[in-house]
Amino acid sequence: MRNIALRLAYDGTAFIGSQWQSQGRSVQGAVEAAWESLTQERKRFNLAGRTDSGVHAHGQVANVQTEARHPLNNVLRGMNALLPKDARILAAQEVGPDFHARYSATRRDYRYLIDNSPVPLPTLRHLALHVAQSLDISAMAETLPTLEGTHDFAAFTVQSPDQKSTVRTVHKAQVAEVELFGRRLIAIDLAANAFLQHMVRVIVGTLLLVGRGRMRAAELQRMLEQRDRKAAGPTAAPHGLTLTWVSYPPELVRWDDERA
Amino acid sequence: MRNIALRLAYDGTAFIGSQWQSQGRSVQGAVEAAWESLTQERKRFNLAGRTDSGVHAHGQVANVQTEARHPLNNVLRGMNALLPKDARILAAQEVGPDFHARYSATRRDYRYLIDNSPVPLPTLRHLALHVAQSLDISAMAETLPTLEGTHDFAAFTVQSPDQKSTVRTVHKAQVAEVELFGRRLIAIDLAANAFLQHMVRVIVGTLLLVGRGRMRAAELQRMLEQRDRKAAGPTAAPHGLTLTWVSYPPELVRWDDERA
Repeated sequence: MRNIALRLAYDGTAFIGSQWQSQGRSVQGAVEAAWESLTQERKRFNLAGRTDSGVHAHGQVANVQTEARHPLNNVLRGMNALLPKDARILAAQEVGPDFHARYSATRRDYRYLIDNSPVPLPTLRHLALHVAQSLDISAMAETLPTLEGTHDFAAFTVQSPDQKSTVRTVHKAQVAEVELFGRRLIAIDLAANAFLQHMVRVIVGTLLLVGRGRMRAAELQRMLEQRDRKAAGPTAAPHGLTLTWVSYPPELVRWDDERA
Repeated sequence: MRNIALRLAYDGTAFIGSQWQSQGRSVQGAVEAAWESLTQERKRFNLAGRTDSGVHAHGQVANVQTEARHPLNNVLRGMNALLPKDARILAAQEVGPDFHARYSATRRDYRYLIDNSPVPLPTLRHLALHVAQSLDISAMAETLPTLEGTHDFAAFTVQSPDQKSTVRTVHKAQVAEVELFGRRLIAIDLAANAFLQHMVRVIVGTLLLVGRGRMRAAELQRMLEQRDRKAAGPTAAPHGLTLTWVSYPPELVRWDDERA
C-alpha cells in the first residue's frame, strides 16, 4: 500500500468548501472524482485544513492510501488534466504509511487580504475583502501580535458543544502591506499549530474593529483572557482568505519544489 | 454642457470587450446603461483604449458630454451602485470641452502577466497567461527594449486595409519580475503613444518565441525593419493583459487621487 501526499491550490469562489458534503461542489469531491477517473479507485482523501466556501488555497495538503501504481509524475499530470480549472495539484510526493495530511500537520499558514481603498479593484474582488473606510494600519500592526503564543482562543471561534480544547499556539500574527496590481493591500498573516472553526476570520473581523478605531489593544487582550466571544468583531467574509502553507516534520514529507 | 472624465477598472473575463457591439456584454454598454439609470440621459461614451474580451483594465478612461447636474461624488457613488461588480469607476473629474478620452490621450500603459511555472495557480488563471515551459527571462529582458522608440510596427498588428499609418512610438518595453500570491510572475510592460490592433499581444507572443529560444534579438530587429508579420509569434491570449494607465496633458485632466 502506497501513501501519496498532494499539495493543492484552488480558487474557492465556486466551491462549497474544501470538505465533501452530500450536496454541492467541494474540493475534496473534485479531487476524489479525478482520482477515481485516473485510477478506478474510489477513495476518501484526508485534507490538512478545512476551508469554507470562498476561501482559497495555494498550499492545501491531502493524502491518500492507494494500490495504484501510477508514477508520481503521471499522478500530477493526470489529476491536473481531469480536475476542473479552479483546482490544481502543485506537487505529489510519496510519503510513509504514518503520514496523515491533517493529523501530521504541525502548522498552518493563512493570509487574509484587504483592499482598503474607496473603490474596490474588480480583478481583486474574489481575492481581497474591500473596506472603503480608511483603516488605521499602525494600530492593527501593533495590536495583532498580542495573539502570538499559546492561549485559549474560545473568544475567537463559534460556540461548539463538541469542541474539546480551545487552546491553540499562534506562531505568527502580523500585518504586512503588499502591492498587488499597483494597489497597496493590507495582508494579515496568521500561523498556528491549528485553528479553531472560523478562528482566522473572527480574528480578522476583530482586528477590523481595531483598524476602525472601535477597539483598543487592551480590549483585545481582555477579550482573549476572558474568553469573551461577544466582544469579538463579526466573522470576516471568506473571500479575502487563503491557506498558503501547511508544515510537517521534515522526516514525513519534503516537497521536491520546496524553496530552500 | 459639462464634460466628465471617468477612470475605469474592470475584470475583462465576462465582457466581450470594451467597445459596444450590437450583441453581448461590453464595458461601454455597461457604463452607458448605468449612466442612463443614473441621469435618464442616453449617451455614447468615448473610451481611451479598445480592449478585447478577457483583457482587464485598472486605468481605462472614458468621457461624456452631459447636461446632468449630479455632483462628481454622486456620479462616482451612483455609477458604482448601478454597475455590475466586474466594472468600477475609480475616479470622476470635470474636464474642459476639448477633452476626448481617446483623442486627447498621449500614452497608454499595459502590463502582461505570465505565470511561468509547471502548474498554474487557479487564483491567477484569469489574470496571467500560464506557460509551463521554463522561459529564458534574461533573453526576453534583453530583447524587448529593441522595440522602444518610433518604428513602423506593421509586423506587429493584424492586416487591415483601413489602417492609415502603422508608425507608433513605444516609450517603454521592459520585462520585470513581480511577486503575486507567493509566486514570481513575469511582467511585460509596454507603453506607447498608441497601439495598433492586437499590437501588445503580438509583441508578447513574439517575445515568448524569444523566451523559448526560438527567436533571437537580431531576428526581432529584422522583423521590425522588414515589417514581416509572418515572422511574428502567435497573438498571445487576452487574459494576461491589463490596461494599467492612460496619460493626458496635465492641463486637460488631473485626477484627485493621482499619485504624485
